[in-house]
Amino acid sequence: MRNIARCVALVVIITLPAFAQSQATPPDRDVVFQASTIGALLDGVYDGDITLGELRRHGDFGIGTVNGLDGELIVLNGAFFSVTADGRVHLLPPAVSTPFAAVTPFQTDRVHALRDVTSLDVLKQQIDAVLPTTNIAYAIRVTGVFTQVKTRSVPRQSRPYRPLAEIVESQPTFEFENVAGTLVGFRLPGFVAGLNVPGYHLHFLADDLSGGGHLLECAVEQATVEIDDSRGLFVALPATEDFDASDASQERKEELERVEKDSK
Amino acid sequence: MRNIARCVALVVIITLPAFAQSQATPPDRDVVFQASTIGALLDGVYDGDITLGELRRHGDFGIGTVNGLDGELIVLNGAFFSVTADGRVHLLPPAVSTPFAAVTPFQTDRVHALRDVTSLDVLKQQIDAVLPTTNIAYAIRVTGVFTQVKTRSVPRQSRPYRPLAEIVESQPTFEFENVAGTLVGFRLPGFVAGLNVPGYHLHFLADDLSGGGHLLECAVEQATVEIDDSRGLFVALPATEDFDASDASQERKEELERVEKDSK
Repeated sequence: MRNIARCVALVVIITLPAFAQSQATPPDRDVVFQASTIGALLDGVYDGDITLGELRRHGDFGIGTVNGLDGELIVLNGAFFSVTADGRVHLLPPAVSTPFAAVTPFQTDRVHALRDVTSLDVLKQQIDAVLPTTNIAYAIRVTGVFTQVKTRSVPRQSRPYRPLAEIVESQPTFEFENVAGTLVGFRLPGFVAGLNVPGYHLHFLADDLSGGGHLLECAVEQATVEIDDSRGLFVALPATEDFDASDASQERKEELERVEKDSK
Repeated sequence: MRNIARCVALVVIITLPAFAQSQATPPDRDVVFQASTIGALLDGVYDGDITLGELRRHGDFGIGTVNGLDGELIVLNGAFFSVTADGRVHLLPPAVSTPFAAVTPFQTDRVHALRDVTSLDVLKQQIDAVLPTTNIAYAIRVTGVFTQVKTRSVPRQSRPYRPLAEIVESQPTFEFENVAGTLVGFRLPGFVAGLNVPGYHLHFLADDLSGGGHLLECAVEQATVEIDDSRGLFVALPATEDFDASDASQERKEELERVEKDSK
């Protein structure tokens, strides 16, 4: 009898935290948490009100940028890195803020081997082939020794801020060969247009922290892709005058394509 | 000394729950929680996996529909009502599920008097005039004795489901005169297109529960609008085969206009 009583007490203790959590988010629904919108970023809202420390509470994996557009952000294993316009990698302290980022607590739902990836398009095709629906968010982590990687970063801006499409016209790009590293990012549904980047959005970080940035092109003979399915999307709109005054709802499909892709 | 110790103990007790809550959602950021997307609803995904009981944990105020498209949903003061195609109002039990709904814990951030509202367009203009930005979500509650209200509902569907734009072509409409009631709904930013209805989306519920529905037209001499600003948006995508297979990302601007407005 005494053992049964102990067992019941244990069950109660284990159950309580799970119940408390289910009050906050729906059960079995991983969440991609994003700060601000891609529309506001394209419009030049380069200062946000969310710190990386706060972002960390919503995920340990993701991408974005930092205040002042001071480089490309990579969140990997709970650490925050930026790749600045000089190509250097910086470990960022939690007090730094971000104008645009998306993170998720990465839990591997799917693992697949990638073979003979001769380009970023081939990479996308191989991942597309294993994803069952275009209607949910997937966090994407690709690890391997890349035969070729091309990235870009963005130079830190000062006010008055210009639109993002103007800035990336003069983006510094970086090329790597035979580099061990990780692609970090998302494949998002088409219906997030206006909020985030539909389709693939990947950043790269070299294992030895020698470089990285917004991914423009890559090739890899053998790699592993881990995928985390998410059916929850949380958008935290900045409580700032810049955001409120921005033209965040203008359609910018053509601008977004220019910004995401290689302009050279 | 003893009083100081008591005081410190009290502060700790009061502070702890607030801190626990700040782990779940960002501080000072009210959240509009929505089930599924307007794109999936327009594509005929009329069965969802979220119960009204679960929805209630995320808000006490909002609008939507219920599984099988069985009427217009109004969430007011924590109670869930549907207005079915026969014009009747039903109090719904928490086990009913919804394919599309948006709710928020309503807290009044702004109160304004409305005067000489001769049409729904005038109502929108008067509310527009007091809202400081087009880039955040506003929950809208208008109370008054309406000289005129026109609503519609939707008839319960059976499988195979047809697209929503076809169904509302034969929507039953209802007219009211000198009716005390509440308009319940949202004004959302343009960048939610694809996820929800940009601009105003209002439902009506008569105080005596004699009728209501999706608002098509209204007039009121004196009314009060209460507004709840929200900078958090949570989208819970259904974990259903119907949702995964739907064409949720197709652009349906013209279809949405037909669905939202008076087709007669």
